[in-house]
Amino acid sequence: MSEAQLYAEKLAQAQALLGPGDLWLIAARETLERPEPGLALVSGADLTWDAFFLVTRDAATAIVGRFDAPGLEPTWRVLPYDEDYAELLRAEVAALDPGRVLLDYASDNPLLDGLSHGMYLELRSVLPGLPFESAAGFLGRLRSVKTPAEQRRIKAAVDRAEAHLHELSQLIRPGWSEVQAAEHLHRRLRAEGLEPAWGWKGCPNVSFARMPSHAGATGAVLEPGMLIHTDYGVRLEGYCSDLQRVYYWPEPGRGVPGELEAAFGVVRAAMDAAGEALRPGAKGYEVDAAARRVVTAAGYPEYKYATGHSLGRATHDGGTLLGPRWPRYGRAPEGVVQEGEVYTLELGVMLEGVGYVGLEEDVVVRAHGAEWLCGRQEQLYVLG
Amino acid sequence: MSEAQLYAEKLAQAQALLGPGDLWLIAARETLERPEPGLALVSGADLTWDAFFLVTRDAATAIVGRFDAPGLEPTWRVLPYDEDYAELLRAEVAALDPGRVLLDYASDNPLLDGLSHGMYLELRSVLPGLPFESAAGFLGRLRSVKTPAEQRRIKAAVDRAEAHLHELSQLIRPGWSEVQAAEHLHRRLRAEGLEPAWGWKGCPNVSFARMPSHAGATGAVLEPGMLIHTDYGVRLEGYCSDLQRVYYWPEPGRGVPGELEAAFGVVRAAMDAAGEALRPGAKGYEVDAAARRVVTAAGYPEYKYATGHSLGRATHDGGTLLGPRWPRYGRAPEGVVQEGEVYTLELGVMLEGVGYVGLEEDVVVRAHGAEWLCGRQEQLYVLG
Repeated sequence: MSEAQLYAEKLAQAQALLGPGDLWLIAARETLERPEPGLALVSGADLTWDAFFLVTRDAATAIVGRFDAPGLEPTWRVLPYDEDYAELLRAEVAALDPGRVLLDYASDNPLLDGLSHGMYLELRSVLPGLPFESAAGFLGRLRSVKTPAEQRRIKAAVDRAEAHLHELSQLIRPGWSEVQAAEHLHRRLRAEGLEPAWGWKGCPNVSFARMPSHAGATGAVLEPGMLIHTDYGVRLEGYCSDLQRVYYWPEPGRGVPGELEAAFGVVRAAMDAAGEALRPGAKGYEVDAAARRVVTAAGYPEYKYATGHSLGRATHDGGTLLGPRWPRYGRAPEGVVQEGEVYTLELGVMLEGVGYVGLEEDVVVRAHGAEWLCGRQEQLYVLG
Repeated sequence: MSEAQLYAEKLAQAQALLGPGDLWLIAARETLERPEPGLALVSGADLTWDAFFLVTRDAATAIVGRFDAPGLEPTWRVLPYDEDYAELLRAEVAALDPGRVLLDYASDNPLLDGLSHGMYLELRSVLPGLPFESAAGFLGRLRSVKTPAEQRRIKAAVDRAEAHLHELSQLIRPGWSEVQAAEHLHRRLRAEGLEPAWGWKGCPNVSFARMPSHAGATGAVLEPGMLIHTDYGVRLEGYCSDLQRVYYWPEPGRGVPGELEAAFGVVRAAMDAAGEALRPGAKGYEVDAAARRVVTAAGYPEYKYATGHSLGRATHDGGTLLGPRWPRYGRAPEGVVQEGEVYTLELGVMLEGVGYVGLEEDVVVRAHGAEWLCGRQEQLYVLG
């Protein structure tokens, strides 16, 4: 499927989700420096000047600067401007006569929060008295429920990441640094014309015998008796994978420590519980709780992050969060799981002196429950 | 100079620009998907969770998620959080007791508008009653006035772009398509580990015998008698160049058409006028008017864009615009030119049937006036 078809399909999905009087109004500019994640679902255009996209059940209009106009897909009715857009925008909105105007802002959902505060003030000034509200409900659903074409792209990104990780597991050995392992994956990406799912600096995140942070790989060197943890994903044709795997390199003449086997078993059981709980109609925090309680009931410390997040154009793709009802997550864990959504499931246990026993798997929600998009890690991989 | 030193120098510049009671409060999250251009001046960290940076004349504090904390530069006093940041943020702001709180929003300046509307609402809710105002005045100056290290990086990016363009001019010939020319520059970038200044899709923008648009190169093929227009820049160590050049391939046995020579002369004279007018204390719209009137006085149609923009981490770097007082530019052309700022100067004339006679040069503002960072194009380059 071509890029233009993918955007057209997603725009049709947006129009089907809108109510009769709804206007989805996207405002963006300088999108190369400040991408608008909501716009990026329905158009691949880079916009330099202030741009306004008006979507209703029946209309899809783009008001853009003259030089930006040729970049728009043919699905859009394009109205270019030169010196000012205010009259044009007012007239178009008046003609649509919306009952409510949905804007891309959300305190608790970064990927649904693409409207800048300055653009919001500009809209308030150019369109006084309009009934603005957050598009989060609508937009979260549009982002989260993947079309079949989107699911195929994510699956392809998963396949590539698995192949790269398998290759790494065959090559890595004591004496390699975390950075060396990361560079190996970067070479694979470059050779295949791909990008890391979350930037060259932090992806992959390789950690030997320690808790990972978002800061990425260090110069630390692998020694026998260390656990190798990788957090890695690939961005392929705009869509991401996101996988965590653990490998153990035993000390000479020794097997896998019992505490490590035990921890892996609990992590796997918690992952099973998350997979069981993930089905249409479940609330995000319920899926989280099902997994979290397996870890805490086994006496391990509670992990300090959500059990899963949406996966799509971004690795943290917004919408419903499979997370606890902590204040910093706002309302994101209250969302209801839908068929066609793609999530990661991720959780782990830190064993001091050994390493982080953490897994992350990518799944799509079907009518009957979770379907794994990856080959699950069901046992500890022992290297050497 | 290391990255960490560059950020430390820029942070010191920010602190020197703040008044005694000023607090510059930056709020950002998921910065890989939504970069915050104000934050990117003073920290290279990628932040996943909600993050708050508090800068006063004497303090530089970062409140960030636990897993993001290791990515921060040592200049920051880092306060990590797990489940919630609200109490921590309130306590830190209360301790600083600011007279005013500057936030990164601006209706008319995209690069000074890094705060999302959802994060603004969150700040309003967590910090009720605080005297928020736009940071645009302060932040525009911080962005625009480049440190010596920043100026050196821009100059290096200019040098590379010039070398690539020179090479292209030696190779291109009738039969090449616009896309072929663009791909040649892309190969140079990849071979040198560089990025285009404004994305792979639109940079370079190569146009044969037509008006360029932001949509980039097409399959159109070069024929004798066509003008070749290139708009190209390189991003090197985070900083950009942005140059437009014109080349003419004559028809066999013929010279350069008189109307083309005449138009080039006017464009060059307008560029001279812009360079003359660009000095500390001038207003943005005055520089624009000096150049614009040369073009219109010669009887050519008025160009539909600004005569120049700031150049830095972004090609459209925000702050003062050397543009006309059109509504869509808001207050950006009212800014006052400062020593140490780096601008492009760009303007042109479209000759139907021949092509776009457009130039763009990169200059730094010194106490005495404009200093060219590039070798100016002072004559039409004739190829073949």
